[in-house]
Amino acid sequence: MNRITKLFGIEKPIIQAGMIWCSPWQLAAAVSNNGGLGVIGAGSMYPETLEEHVDKCLKATSKPFAVNLPLLYPDIEKHIETVIKYKVPIVITSAGNPKVWTPKLKASGIKVVHVVSSAKFALKSEAAGVDAIVAEGFEAGGHNGREETTTLALIQDVVDNVNVPVIAAGGIATGKAMLAVMSLGADAVQIGSRFVASEESSAHENFKKVVVESGEGQTSLTLKEITPVRLIKNNFYNQVQHAYQNDASVEDLKYLLGRGRAKKGMFEGDLMEGELEIGQVATYIKNIKPAAEIMEEILGEFHTSRRQLSSTIYDF
Amino acid sequence: MNRITKLFGIEKPIIQAGMIWCSPWQLAAAVSNNGGLGVIGAGSMYPETLEEHVDKCLKATSKPFAVNLPLLYPDIEKHIETVIKYKVPIVITSAGNPKVWTPKLKASGIKVVHVVSSAKFALKSEAAGVDAIVAEGFEAGGHNGREETTTLALIQDVVDNVNVPVIAAGGIATGKAMLAVMSLGADAVQIGSRFVASEESSAHENFKKVVVESGEGQTSLTLKEITPVRLIKNNFYNQVQHAYQNDASVEDLKYLLGRGRAKKGMFEGDLMEGELEIGQVATYIKNIKPAAEIMEEILGEFHTSRRQLSSTIYDF
Repeated sequence: MNRITKLFGIEKPIIQAGMIWCSPWQLAAAVSNNGGLGVIGAGSMYPETLEEHVDKCLKATSKPFAVNLPLLYPDIEKHIETVIKYKVPIVITSAGNPKVWTPKLKASGIKVVHVVSSAKFALKSEAAGVDAIVAEGFEAGGHNGREETTTLALIQDVVDNVNVPVIAAGGIATGKAMLAVMSLGADAVQIGSRFVASEESSAHENFKKVVVESGEGQTSLTLKEITPVRLIKNNFYNQVQHAYQNDASVEDLKYLLGRGRAKKGMFEGDLMEGELEIGQVATYIKNIKPAAEIMEEILGEFHTSRRQLSSTIYDF
Repeated sequence: MNRITKLFGIEKPIIQAGMIWCSPWQLAAAVSNNGGLGVIGAGSMYPETLEEHVDKCLKATSKPFAVNLPLLYPDIEKHIETVIKYKVPIVITSAGNPKVWTPKLKASGIKVVHVVSSAKFALKSEAAGVDAIVAEGFEAGGHNGREETTTLALIQDVVDNVNVPVIAAGGIATGKAMLAVMSLGADAVQIGSRFVASEESSAHENFKKVVVESGEGQTSLTLKEITPVRLIKNNFYNQVQHAYQNDASVEDLKYLLGRGRAKKGMFEGDLMEGELEIGQVATYIKNIKPAAEIMEEILGEFHTSRRQLSSTIYDF
């Protein structure tokens, strides 16, 4: 037991990230049933869709699970109503001010975790009353912080600054990376990209295939003027680069991005015109597996590497 | 002993980075005399300056030390002559093709290490015959790779791909970060920024003070169209940002950068007009100390954290 497994009532300190278009009830239930914390990604769901996923997840697992709520979501009130109505045990909030909803969620008996990309916002989140922090580095897929602080540079600083448990995110798809961030003082890991290529993920098969085939240097953090997002350098990305070269304004970029790009790419499998959000660790993802096997593989490598690190003689 | 301490004939797997304007013979000798690998940074030295520093370093320590040679340096032939003439035991090459000089250096009995920012170039360096690789992530100060791969995402991939020993660089200023990259499979660490704020560094006192006082998010990787460089967001950086907003061409940026910006900032202490190269870990640097004390502090934290990680019960 550590601070995170105790707080959430789970067995294994692996949190599956609530990724838009890829984190349905099937994935959340699979992760929770295997002892981790499964998370439904509400950012890509209409209120009635989230309600359906929460309802089905409750039926598919008796274990704790969570919902990820991007606080800037237009229908956020309805999502908040849903998680309270269904007594979702844990809510992970992101992209917004944790002061606004944390008191109401906590008053309803829900544990609240907020996602940050700096020690400064970790402190603000703690002051807002959250139970834990997800600290996410620059290498993470999808939406990302403006500071560009990497996971290695971020985690120890956040751990040194707050008293609540810290979950490390960004750059973690292997047991060795899990061991690395635990070395920095993290209590648990949040893993996104690796679960995109899980059998239970709702990512389109085309997108899963791209993730499996992509190698190093094939993602980029772009669209920083709107919201920084890490994605695969596909045809859509090239259009964005072309727009930059032609001195596109923020309005031009918003127009180019348009609506539904992420759905088109990640959920509908349009690899040319869609947005394909994934982390730098896509390099390490070589296959599509059930979530439970992914977790076993990561934990297996974690334990093996820790034993090795513990038994090595360091005579310096 | 591990592969790196054995290869270099040193006691402690800490390599001090050969940073321009900050790595004179005094720093290299101090690190080597304390059991690490001290490195003279030749990138900011005229041929006669390098010769003087090598000569003085040889007199100041009987331990192995290295010279860092950026291969694109205009007078590279003269620098190569110097390291061969003085039988410098180890040369760390960067910014260029390792095929060109590695055979000559090796034939002269010099061990060669090349700095890369991707597994792809690690493989090319290995094929060129280098004895070890420095793999440096996005968070590092100074010149940096175009792939923007972070240390956490990079190291395991490089270790998995090459057979030669791997030295991790970028984001390492503490013992916990050292433990983290050793968890990923690195054989040693290269530490730059922390040694900028050492007593023996030739960084101007003004620059050292800025490093000690700067907090998170205060560096940025910029000038990517010329050579990506991570630096402090000072007045010069703001001028660069202003140029970008005004659609500056590569020529405009080169003109703005001009000559001697790094010297002006780091060596002469002009905090307004100079370029101040430092890594994201500036956050962790709170004081200026002798190099030996910095090393003791890092190794102390490394051992404490490893013991803690080894003795924790992970019941999952």
